[in-house]
Amino acid sequence: MKESVSVGLLGLGTVGSGVVHMIESHQEELQQRVGCVVKVGKVLVRDIEKNRGVDVNEELLTQDPDEVINNPEVDVVIEVMGGIDQAKEYILASLKNKKHVVTANKDLMALHGRELLTAAVENESDLFYEASVAGGIPILRSLVEGLSSDRITKLMGIVNGTTNYILTKMTKNNVPYESVLKEAQDLGFAEADPTADVEGLDAARKVVILGTLGFSMKVGLDDVKIKGITEVDAEDISYSKKLGYTIKLLSIASSENGSIELSVQPTLLPSRHPLASVNDEYNAVYVYGEAVGETMFYGPGAGQLPTATAVVSDLVAVIKNMRLGVNGKSVILPQHERKLKKDDEIKSKYFIRLFVKDEAGAFSKISHLFKDHGISLEKLIQEPVINNGTAELVIITHETNHQAFEDVHSQLNDLDVVVEVKSRYRVEGM
Amino acid sequence: MKESVSVGLLGLGTVGSGVVHMIESHQEELQQRVGCVVKVGKVLVRDIEKNRGVDVNEELLTQDPDEVINNPEVDVVIEVMGGIDQAKEYILASLKNKKHVVTANKDLMALHGRELLTAAVENESDLFYEASVAGGIPILRSLVEGLSSDRITKLMGIVNGTTNYILTKMTKNNVPYESVLKEAQDLGFAEADPTADVEGLDAARKVVILGTLGFSMKVGLDDVKIKGITEVDAEDISYSKKLGYTIKLLSIASSENGSIELSVQPTLLPSRHPLASVNDEYNAVYVYGEAVGETMFYGPGAGQLPTATAVVSDLVAVIKNMRLGVNGKSVILPQHERKLKKDDEIKSKYFIRLFVKDEAGAFSKISHLFKDHGISLEKLIQEPVINNGTAELVIITHETNHQAFEDVHSQLNDLDVVVEVKSRYRVEGM
Repeated sequence: MKESVSVGLLGLGTVGSGVVHMIESHQEELQQRVGCVVKVGKVLVRDIEKNRGVDVNEELLTQDPDEVINNPEVDVVIEVMGGIDQAKEYILASLKNKKHVVTANKDLMALHGRELLTAAVENESDLFYEASVAGGIPILRSLVEGLSSDRITKLMGIVNGTTNYILTKMTKNNVPYESVLKEAQDLGFAEADPTADVEGLDAARKVVILGTLGFSMKVGLDDVKIKGITEVDAEDISYSKKLGYTIKLLSIASSENGSIELSVQPTLLPSRHPLASVNDEYNAVYVYGEAVGETMFYGPGAGQLPTATAVVSDLVAVIKNMRLGVNGKSVILPQHERKLKKDDEIKSKYFIRLFVKDEAGAFSKISHLFKDHGISLEKLIQEPVINNGTAELVIITHETNHQAFEDVHSQLNDLDVVVEVKSRYRVEGM
Repeated sequence: MKESVSVGLLGLGTVGSGVVHMIESHQEELQQRVGCVVKVGKVLVRDIEKNRGVDVNEELLTQDPDEVINNPEVDVVIEVMGGIDQAKEYILASLKNKKHVVTANKDLMALHGRELLTAAVENESDLFYEASVAGGIPILRSLVEGLSSDRITKLMGIVNGTTNYILTKMTKNNVPYESVLKEAQDLGFAEADPTADVEGLDAARKVVILGTLGFSMKVGLDDVKIKGITEVDAEDISYSKKLGYTIKLLSIASSENGSIELSVQPTLLPSRHPLASVNDEYNAVYVYGEAVGETMFYGPGAGQLPTATAVVSDLVAVIKNMRLGVNGKSVILPQHERKLKKDDEIKSKYFIRLFVKDEAGAFSKISHLFKDHGISLEKLIQEPVINNGTAELVIITHETNHQAFEDVHSQLNDLDVVVEVKSRYRVEGM
């Protein structure tokens, strides 16, 4: 058995520096846990001269990827460089060289996870990626280990910190989207180009990873229905509050009769629901298991040390497997062929807000339309809009299916009494 | 490698029946996960004739414990009979017979965990007990695996469903303790003799298990400071609400400079804190890690199938280890000798409610007392009590230490302006 394990890093940015810091500062505990010394053997960087605020022996730095991925001394490769093509190439080369790999790269795992996992199994190597979803929350390990005896039926996640920060501030301070986004950018909680976050793409990548693992199904990014938060306005939030709800950007992966749904969309949750009190940049994943019922895993979704913690936990698992000689055996490949729910198989309640003519019979026409599609109404608020002959109508339906609701939505626009449908959201967590 | 694994059950009550049900109904998934058939080989029961609502071949039932614990066919013993002495004897015998053991018995693990775990390690057997804390929540596995690279500094848990149900109803419906307890008993959420729950003993057993594992320290039930919920009254809850807090029975295990504190007590949490929205019979454990920051694990704390899920997850881990030939190696024995925090090392904010004489200078005397002990006040409410010359005063302090606060408390009783100190609670989660 080896007396020490050598780790090669691809990248020494925020997360990479955190990983080096944790390996060094937790050396004693690490040794206790895995029974051998864990050392950083080589680190691929773009610029050797750059000051990184972490103490790394300069001799360990290299600009040549081969010194990590083809280095016979390196046992485990940690990919924290980000990006897609080059990271993929390096990981595949590492696996072919019988190295084990830990990655924090959600974009890569969402796009090419199956190919990489297959390569890992073929080479009897481990490939772990806990840090790719919900940073410091050990959600992937919980799905695989803790809930391993149960059948998962639904996952609902707040898995993007930026959008949760924005929605939290909009809700608490009654301010519009644009000004909160600006503030978040100033504070570094949102990127200069926030598209991937606010349009829901980042969350979509994570729901692909969760759905693939939770339902062992071969799904990809194209299978996710995505709606971001850019159209959520202060009125939506204020009416939601009045009705006892909180709006969150929810990633949903759910399974019924062998078909699954993957989606990302702003969603109303009852304000007493545990997900509704996940605030600011925090993440959480709410899990429905057939036997266990409802569980939730909450924590920081990003950040240097939380993400590094997840990476180092994976590293510990890899080294334990090395010492047991069982690498590659706990890598899980999706078993089932892709089968997606049709729109009429997706069931939930809905919130819809619209402006209608403030005249006799208007509400009757609208409620008839819902009734004709078999949708009954659970809650509603109607308020006249001062001085312009219209009223604002907010409805929460009872449970229906997505097809029926969308049919009503498109026909509402044709009703003469409807001035404009302002917004519509799914309602979950009942 | 064995083609099938045989499980022997000690007990076939609610949880035992759930375990049998899950092994049978999830047979296909289990086989996929562990690579062999998992069958129930023998079940110890008190009464063979009793109808249990689960379909068990009568030939598997026995009233002779030796047919389980001394049966060479049985690989894994699942102890779900409860109680202390007999369960302990059977588990020790099973371990000596080189069987692996899964138990859901918190009382036993809190009292004799170290002895049992030592026996497991000596016999190269596994002994897992996920179900003993917070039923369906994979908290022990998360502490050991998911957060394995981090240093845990504090655990705060809502780990008793009965008391959480009672406090939730008192808070929501503004009703006194006695009437909610009665209702909980009628609904089966509280035992006819609720002492172990409402006096905090059940929670204390769980905090011993959490503290032992989280801080790898040799602690026992005597090391826990325990205060139950029987003295929480409607006024405490209503003032807490006014000040933005929710009262929960909190189990705390925290570590600083190698000393730990274990306690169970009604505690105020900010109403926006994730633990404050853990309602009804649900459980949650809030974990502070040095690197990861704050995470929370939420779910059902009891119930047939949630508990059975935890037991079967442990069973899966045992069988995986059997197939890898590494049983006994992931059993964790506490390393550190017991070292408890002194009262002046326990830091928090406090809530105190008292009746004072409604006269000039009363508040000045009281505030001086706090000041003299270095405690500053964060929030306060004073309201006159109609027609009796007293006023009700509610104070939340800034952070102080337990010794200083208790000193103030005892001296308050000596002040001539103080009529009565009604209640005092810790305040956490800032």
